[in-house]
Amino acid sequence: MTEPATPNIAIVGATGAVGQELLTLLHERSFPFDALRLITSARSKGKTLHCGDASCMTQELTTDSFEGIDIAFFSAGGEISTQYAPIALQSGATVIDNSSAFRMDDRFPLVVPEINSDAIQPNTIIANPNCSTIILLMAITPIRTMYGINRICVSTYQAASGAGAAAMRELENQTKDVLAGLPAEPHVFDQVCAFNVFSHNTPIGADGYNTEETKMVQETHKIWDDHDIAITATCIRVPVLRAHCESVNLTLDTPISEDDLANIRNSLHQSPGLRLLDNREHNLFPTPETVSGVDEVYIGRLRLDQSQMIDNTHSQGLELFIAGDQIRKGAALNAIQIAEHLT
Amino acid sequence: MTEPATPNIAIVGATGAVGQELLTLLHERSFPFDALRLITSARSKGKTLHCGDASCMTQELTTDSFEGIDIAFFSAGGEISTQYAPIALQSGATVIDNSSAFRMDDRFPLVVPEINSDAIQPNTIIANPNCSTIILLMAITPIRTMYGINRICVSTYQAASGAGAAAMRELENQTKDVLAGLPAEPHVFDQVCAFNVFSHNTPIGADGYNTEETKMVQETHKIWDDHDIAITATCIRVPVLRAHCESVNLTLDTPISEDDLANIRNSLHQSPGLRLLDNREHNLFPTPETVSGVDEVYIGRLRLDQSQMIDNTHSQGLELFIAGDQIRKGAALNAIQIAEHLT
Repeated sequence: MTEPATPNIAIVGATGAVGQELLTLLHERSFPFDALRLITSARSKGKTLHCGDASCMTQELTTDSFEGIDIAFFSAGGEISTQYAPIALQSGATVIDNSSAFRMDDRFPLVVPEINSDAIQPNTIIANPNCSTIILLMAITPIRTMYGINRICVSTYQAASGAGAAAMRELENQTKDVLAGLPAEPHVFDQVCAFNVFSHNTPIGADGYNTEETKMVQETHKIWDDHDIAITATCIRVPVLRAHCESVNLTLDTPISEDDLANIRNSLHQSPGLRLLDNREHNLFPTPETVSGVDEVYIGRLRLDQSQMIDNTHSQGLELFIAGDQIRKGAALNAIQIAEHLT
Repeated sequence: MTEPATPNIAIVGATGAVGQELLTLLHERSFPFDALRLITSARSKGKTLHCGDASCMTQELTTDSFEGIDIAFFSAGGEISTQYAPIALQSGATVIDNSSAFRMDDRFPLVVPEINSDAIQPNTIIANPNCSTIILLMAITPIRTMYGINRICVSTYQAASGAGAAAMRELENQTKDVLAGLPAEPHVFDQVCAFNVFSHNTPIGADGYNTEETKMVQETHKIWDDHDIAITATCIRVPVLRAHCESVNLTLDTPISEDDLANIRNSLHQSPGLRLLDNREHNLFPTPETVSGVDEVYIGRLRLDQSQMIDNTHSQGLELFIAGDQIRKGAALNAIQIAEHLT
């Protein structure tokens, strides 16, 4: 790719949950860079943040923020991206955007590097998919390659982190209140989040699907470049801090046997960015606790779908349960991996 | 039915989560009874429990515990039911058993009164279905009546209460520990339950399904008396105290339109024991918070399954999300309703 080997980097939204994780990952992965510019709202400017041993003071976002920047990570919401990502692009930066602003824009690629790294190119806006989509497609793309997927039916168990650092604090503080016998007071979410489960906090369309669910459908179509794939999602928040789980029911193109299931296990085990945790004897399967702070998406509960058996030995369907860190592979790690392909 | 109008009642497992709820419901519903005998393990005998203004001392379970008893509720686990329910039956009691001991025994009925009250009869063991099955079938049986159901694909969000009062305390105490920065120490569950989600804590069979999932399949077959219905379940615990949610994807016999969906809404709204909460504009749908301590099973997120559309207006599939109090309709209330049919 054409970006310098040690690019100048900007992070827009540096004090947010994803911005903080980007700083951690730049250091952890020894990402080579020359200068680092941390950009925030006026409210958060002048704070000193750390990236390993280096420290850097945050500065307010302006139209001049991107001068001399080679790669700009955006993680400050759709409105900021819509307004400033084109400015960064015009200033000569390649933008890696964590918001939904450009994901479905045909001019720009939508990338999970393990799946469609060929779509990565410099001097454009590269959209980072929605966290739930990334985690889903990481797990099932190797299965699609082997047996073909005709239909996906998914129910999610989504952490507070998807709504940002303030939502994570709300879950902790509200839980403390409830345990102390005080009333739960929702602010970030409309619903009580402590010890509760609720439908995802995004608007509902005329078809009854919320925006999070529609994102999973549309983004899967775009990343796989397959607009025929049938997919339905039910997106639900659970009182978990930073990792998403998904219960996935697949209808395959080719019926599978227990032998095929063993092949799928081997393939998943060897796939980059995936870990198989499927221990039936000890009831050990992927959980948010397993994957929090971890790079890999975990897969388990693999079994032939008994409701799609076509004879005594073959099923058209496959059940699985997956978990992935929402802030890492669901956001910051995927963005850094895109940047690694650019340099 | 043939039981006396004011029967003598026994509750085996009176100090447990379901036993306590049985006492609450006997009072709340003004269930007419003559004598009340509260039966526990040796460890819990001699405690004074209350049923409204009446108080009653617990006594230890023995083979003589059921003399003079007309209706015996069992809620002390499968082993106690296996050993003592036949003794209670032989003593002349009708047994209403909340354990899994007799559910799949062809000699005994498995009953959700709103669905198959015709199976209720005195002088037998009447099995109360598993909580997840009750909540599922309450919601979808009216839909089956209208359009037929060919296949059910369900993912659950199950509360700690299903594992008893000790599990509920573990969730509270472990959450306090985690918030205080202390390590989470699992005792009742093998997994961390605070701020975590994990596959149901029941053994996994050769087909990869856990016992909770297999119960949902087999009990649905028995209650509906339909062994052809295709059903697959993924059962998951979430950090919630006492109400279960279920994300349900149905494949119907007859494709449905938005008009049919309106008919389904009307029908569900009028079904005994159900409440429709499907407010797309304000994102208000069933949650554990909505249904905790409530008798009705709540239904929402009703929408045509976009992955099973057969043309622009009709879908073979229906999506819905349900919630029900695990201790009430999932256990104690269903048992009391069976008893009400007996007297």
